[in-house]
Amino acid sequence: MKNILLIGAGRSSTSLITYLLNNAATQLWQVTVGDVSKEAALSKTSGHPSSSAIQFDITNAVQCELEVKKSNLVISLLPPHLHLLVALECVKQGKHFITASYLSPEMKALNEDAKKANILMLNECGLDPGIDHMSAMEVIHRLQKSSCELKSFRSYTGGLVAPESNNNPWGYKFSWNPRNVILAGQGTAQYIRNGEYKYIPYSRLFSDIEAIEVAGLGAFDGYANRDSLAYRQHYNIQNIPTILRGTLRQAGYCRAWNVFVKLGLTDDSFKVEKSEHLTYAELIKAFLPTQFHKGDLHDAVARFCGLPPDGEAMSLVKWTGILEDEKIGIANASPAMILQHLLEHKWKLQPNDKDMIVMQHIFEFERNGKQEKLVSSLIVKGDDQSNTAMAKTVGLPLGIVAKLLLEEKIKLTGVHIPVEPEIYIPVLKELKELGITFVETSE
Amino acid sequence: MKNILLIGAGRSSTSLITYLLNNAATQLWQVTVGDVSKEAALSKTSGHPSSSAIQFDITNAVQCELEVKKSNLVISLLPPHLHLLVALECVKQGKHFITASYLSPEMKALNEDAKKANILMLNECGLDPGIDHMSAMEVIHRLQKSSCELKSFRSYTGGLVAPESNNNPWGYKFSWNPRNVILAGQGTAQYIRNGEYKYIPYSRLFSDIEAIEVAGLGAFDGYANRDSLAYRQHYNIQNIPTILRGTLRQAGYCRAWNVFVKLGLTDDSFKVEKSEHLTYAELIKAFLPTQFHKGDLHDAVARFCGLPPDGEAMSLVKWTGILEDEKIGIANASPAMILQHLLEHKWKLQPNDKDMIVMQHIFEFERNGKQEKLVSSLIVKGDDQSNTAMAKTVGLPLGIVAKLLLEEKIKLTGVHIPVEPEIYIPVLKELKELGITFVETSE
Repeated sequence: MKNILLIGAGRSSTSLITYLLNNAATQLWQVTVGDVSKEAALSKTSGHPSSSAIQFDITNAVQCELEVKKSNLVISLLPPHLHLLVALECVKQGKHFITASYLSPEMKALNEDAKKANILMLNECGLDPGIDHMSAMEVIHRLQKSSCELKSFRSYTGGLVAPESNNNPWGYKFSWNPRNVILAGQGTAQYIRNGEYKYIPYSRLFSDIEAIEVAGLGAFDGYANRDSLAYRQHYNIQNIPTILRGTLRQAGYCRAWNVFVKLGLTDDSFKVEKSEHLTYAELIKAFLPTQFHKGDLHDAVARFCGLPPDGEAMSLVKWTGILEDEKIGIANASPAMILQHLLEHKWKLQPNDKDMIVMQHIFEFERNGKQEKLVSSLIVKGDDQSNTAMAKTVGLPLGIVAKLLLEEKIKLTGVHIPVEPEIYIPVLKELKELGITFVETSE
Repeated sequence: MKNILLIGAGRSSTSLITYLLNNAATQLWQVTVGDVSKEAALSKTSGHPSSSAIQFDITNAVQCELEVKKSNLVISLLPPHLHLLVALECVKQGKHFITASYLSPEMKALNEDAKKANILMLNECGLDPGIDHMSAMEVIHRLQKSSCELKSFRSYTGGLVAPESNNNPWGYKFSWNPRNVILAGQGTAQYIRNGEYKYIPYSRLFSDIEAIEVAGLGAFDGYANRDSLAYRQHYNIQNIPTILRGTLRQAGYCRAWNVFVKLGLTDDSFKVEKSEHLTYAELIKAFLPTQFHKGDLHDAVARFCGLPPDGEAMSLVKWTGILEDEKIGIANASPAMILQHLLEHKWKLQPNDKDMIVMQHIFEFERNGKQEKLVSSLIVKGDDQSNTAMAKTVGLPLGIVAKLLLEEKIKLTGVHIPVEPEIYIPVLKELKELGITFVETSE
């Protein structure tokens, strides 16, 4: 009997817990799900005989030590800043540690200790980061083996709503942390194209976009992610002339979102005074320069943004209700919190709604003096509001790695992200069996 | 004999130290100037018989305790985040504490302890914040006493270069921390006008400006400071319909600075890769969207910003040298650090240059049913590169308060900012004697 400790029973744990419990009988696993809310943990394990649900407080060092001791492997779905507490306990006790979150410098610093403890501490093993690393590395290593010289790597991912569940003009519903969607892109996006650095400040991020064609789905808006440059080192392609990672949204989304950015509504750094008494329209007016205040608010915002008042972007903005004389109703809220509050109602995934993950890697390379292009695409749809494509693609890589580790099929030790064949080959193989399959086309 | 401990012998300490030493003989003071660099401390005290210069390390708790013990009063010119260490020691030992920095929540929390210790902990006692509070409160209290109803308070301050020392088209030279000038305004400016909240995001801060006329000097650009709303509480004018605090720059400065903002050059959140090998022109190109790359860089930037290429704003930008094929030459630098590096050369106060402080309060109020306006203005010029107007206006209020406290002419205890008549009346009186005088005009 092997014990798995899973900490954090939030939105993205559903598919992972199902996977672990489905494998529990044949693999002889006992799965303990711990969460600050025991009810949350119980709702995910549903009394499965191989499971136990516990109230788990990561700041309780005694409990943390005890539960890690009982386990053979720990998966952390905690908020990112809390991983380290678990990770340190895992190093101390020599237990494998897996998470979907970005590798932090503090975690990275545990590499030597993890090697000494003979454990793997695998980070960035969800969707993005996670499946993106594994699928990209599989292609990159394959191209390198057949003597191709990689000239360009562009990669886009979007967590969207499936076309059949889309009943709003933005083509968007929340399938993960809404706050991250509202604050997305703040800072400066950095990438490199044809050997030239490119920097896009936040004020231009949603207007300096590209149309990204995905077979069977049409064109999407692609906007650049914060730091594409770091991936040259992660993927050991330091001298590639073009590398860009971006986010996909339905065509038209970015131009409309830019209205919010331009007004200043995505700022989370200050609280709007008396926000509970203001209406959305009053908030918009407070952001709109006085010279645009004349006449109808809709037309004024359009004029301010240089958009046609009856065009698509303004119609998306209007649909949110943000131009209406309705009370905001939440106190002590930043503009970003107000926008999130509004959109959480409007962009709510309904019980039978299917979300959709779209990932596309575009590789350009030279083979025997000839320019070639390979496009590798992934489309995953959710089953419903709980078993979302997001939960599947974030959770299943974690589950598969857990299985491979407990079966001792992965021998790698130290702190890693999943860029090694030893990890990505078996994980991608099982993901394929579970219906998470990349389709390749060449030009 | 009374002992004053002054910690921090940086740029703004010159006039304060001169004031303290000039008063030392008659007041029977011994002034100890401590700095991480003993040379810096020595260079300011110049061996004056009432002074001693010491190497002072604020993180050395033993030294801190000892030096505070020897003193009757402590003035901190440390970087803001270090004040608390000194303040805690002052509370413990019952010694007065004065600083020019913004009152932090942690400092505010010491109020009860300070009262029990029978000491004054005075914050925001420099120029802005400092003289602004004192001079505004003096007028506000005066108007309130004569039954005026305050309708509007707008207040602008600029640390500039005196016209006679101005030999650059920006009308600007650094008289204080250059980094703060580069990063100024990031966030959202908040104020209220005619009872309506106004929010200006950073992307529009330097274009949503006002022309501010100062008698004898002409029109300046005024841009809004981050948080004007908080001053309603500070000044006990909670229901005022209009309150705005802003910063003054030479007319034309803001429109040109906006080119840097629009390009993204004021971002301090990431490091420009290989910045030491890039030229300024290459950096600009990296920020300039590709569709603007054609032709001459000067014209391309003008086109991107919607400015005439031969207009004033582009001529100011050009003057900085930022469009030139010159190596940046500093490694691991953010765009903001690169911009600072460039401007530190261009905007350097020369040995005989005079800087200039301009502060203007504009009060609008109703007296006996009649609308009236009162404008209170301060213009202070520096003597030279060391005895700047900035050093005088930041340092002298601190020195005067120190004297008043040691003479026991201020009895106030607890944590304060200088908004009480007990403080501002004698301070403004002595400032006037020292040539720092507000001039009032009425309409």
